Amino acid sequence: MKIIIAGAGAMGSRFGIMLHKGGNDVTLVDGWPDHVNAIKENGLKANFNGEDITVNIPVMLQSEISAGEKADLIILFTKSMQLDKMLQDVKPLIAPETKILCLLNGIGHEDTIEKYIPMENIFIGNTMWTAGLVGPGQVKLFGSGSVELQNLGKNQEDSAKQLAQVLSDSGLNAKYSDNIHYSIYRKACVNGTMNCLCSILDVNMAEFGATKPAHDIVVTVVNEFAAVAKHEGVDLDVKEVVEHVESCFDPETIGKHYPSMYQDLINNHRLTEIDYINGAVARKGKKYGIPTPYCDLLTQLIHCKEDILEAK
Amino acid sequence: MKIIIAGAGAMGSRFGIMLHKGGNDVTLVDGWPDHVNAIKENGLKANFNGEDITVNIPVMLQSEISAGEKADLIILFTKSMQLDKMLQDVKPLIAPETKILCLLNGIGHEDTIEKYIPMENIFIGNTMWTAGLVGPGQVKLFGSGSVELQNLGKNQEDSAKQLAQVLSDSGLNAKYSDNIHYSIYRKACVNGTMNCLCSILDVNMAEFGATKPAHDIVVTVVNEFAAVAKHEGVDLDVKEVVEHVESCFDPETIGKHYPSMYQDLINNHRLTEIDYINGAVARKGKKYGIPTPYCDLLTQLIHCKEDILEAK
Repeated sequence: MKIIIAGAGAMGSRFGIMLHKGGNDVTLVDGWPDHVNAIKENGLKANFNGEDITVNIPVMLQSEISAGEKADLIILFTKSMQLDKMLQDVKPLIAPETKILCLLNGIGHEDTIEKYIPMENIFIGNTMWTAGLVGPGQVKLFGSGSVELQNLGKNQEDSAKQLAQVLSDSGLNAKYSDNIHYSIYRKACVNGTMNCLCSILDVNMAEFGATKPAHDIVVTVVNEFAAVAKHEGVDLDVKEVVEHVESCFDPETIGKHYPSMYQDLINNHRLTEIDYINGAVARKGKKYGIPTPYCDLLTQLIHCKEDILEAK
Repeated sequence: MKIIIAGAGAMGSRFGIMLHKGGNDVTLVDGWPDHVNAIKENGLKANFNGEDITVNIPVMLQSEISAGEKADLIILFTKSMQLDKMLQDVKPLIAPETKILCLLNGIGHEDTIEKYIPMENIFIGNTMWTAGLVGPGQVKLFGSGSVELQNLGKNQEDSAKQLAQVLSDSGLNAKYSDNIHYSIYRKACVNGTMNCLCSILDVNMAEFGATKPAHDIVVTVVNEFAAVAKHEGVDLDVKEVVEHVESCFDPETIGKHYPSMYQDLINNHRLTEIDYINGAVARKGKKYGIPTPYCDLLTQLIHCKEDILEAK
């Protein structure tokens, strides 16, 4: 199968390597020249569960795509704010029957994708796999994970199941979901609390969880996500989701980690995905007439931090 | 006049020194043993507009007050969270006709004072004087200022005017106000934006003002203060108050300063007065059925920071 990985950062590289090893015709596309050049020159290097491997996968700088063999499948793995540009850049590789699988964090990406792709070819999902970027052309891939995905177009359930099978054939442990928006909102609640609050307060998840107001803040934010999700027909179990979010506080498991937004913003002074997490809920809330003041203020505070740190 | 300064920190010391110099019988009361002992041993030392002076004013540790000459006037200058305890401790010095003047920052202190003092003896105000504590027994007093005050009890306007005269006779430039709650809310809007936001974002006022979201955040917070004030019959001019707040952003005037809460919390890991600023608006909003989500979240975030920094 001809597969384009559009956004070949840590997670895109994991999917690229595993699908390539599984016998697919994979091409990586990315916007970071150093990374693309390193892969071109030396191959994609990975520490894969402790073993150092080098994989030779074709790679293209997204700005240099002019024409090429059309893809059967494009898997989107950009940062949220780079999604629109990526879709514009990979256009030459899209045929009328090319399927698009969006595995980005955050919510509301279908609104962007719809502008470029007919609905029956769009599939969205989320993944529990992890991956780390060590440097240009180099990633670290540990542990196991899974993927859930669903068709957005009507009567495309079989295509979604086939797509899950393609991923599973390469060890990606994917399955069809009949309620992917539930999973996406549930995951967004984790990102919509841990990411912004740890970044604003300059703490890891366990340290935030140890503050007295943490629980009340989490409950209020999750309720805002739930109110907006409900308007879209997704009925979050708030109590269960709050417990799921608060499992991140445990210092014995992942509590001592700093969320990705913290690493982006506080450590590396990079712009964040806040507009696609709390900011998306705030926008949707405005559209639906649902107040989302905590998401509004958390989004504003993260944008303040971006300005203060001159994030790029 | 027999005057007790209840809370002899930087500002209390200023009032104590000026009223003492003006011929009043002043006694300082404070809860910090090092400060009280330093004043007892060496007098209260002040750099008063560039001149080093030492003033011998009687001073008492508040926990050691048992009995004593009743005061004509007690001026309250504690931190907000120390007000209740101070009122309990100075009880032996209060006669039925003792007047109480509350000059604390923040809002809603009358609810605390009322528990100890009949309404007709309570006066509240606010001051534009400044003062700095250098160390135990030592303060720095520069510039000029003013005081506004008003009676809370009915038909006590003349007493309020006499009280203003007593302060003015010692150079404190006090005047009677017929709308003190307006001034208090207006000042609280400055504290309710600059204090918490600079502390949360770890910036000075100019740096906060330079962020894109700053204006919208200020407008939303001031509107919450205004909605609660309106319920109490105080009709804030939101546009004027927002402009007043945003004048703090100017790096040519005070913009490069860090507000007092920043100094307390971030520099010195001390508990803040947030419950008497944004927290008071949140409590009042709850009582009146007025949503104040920005004040709610800002209060929670400051309490998170207190927990994280183990503030005391």
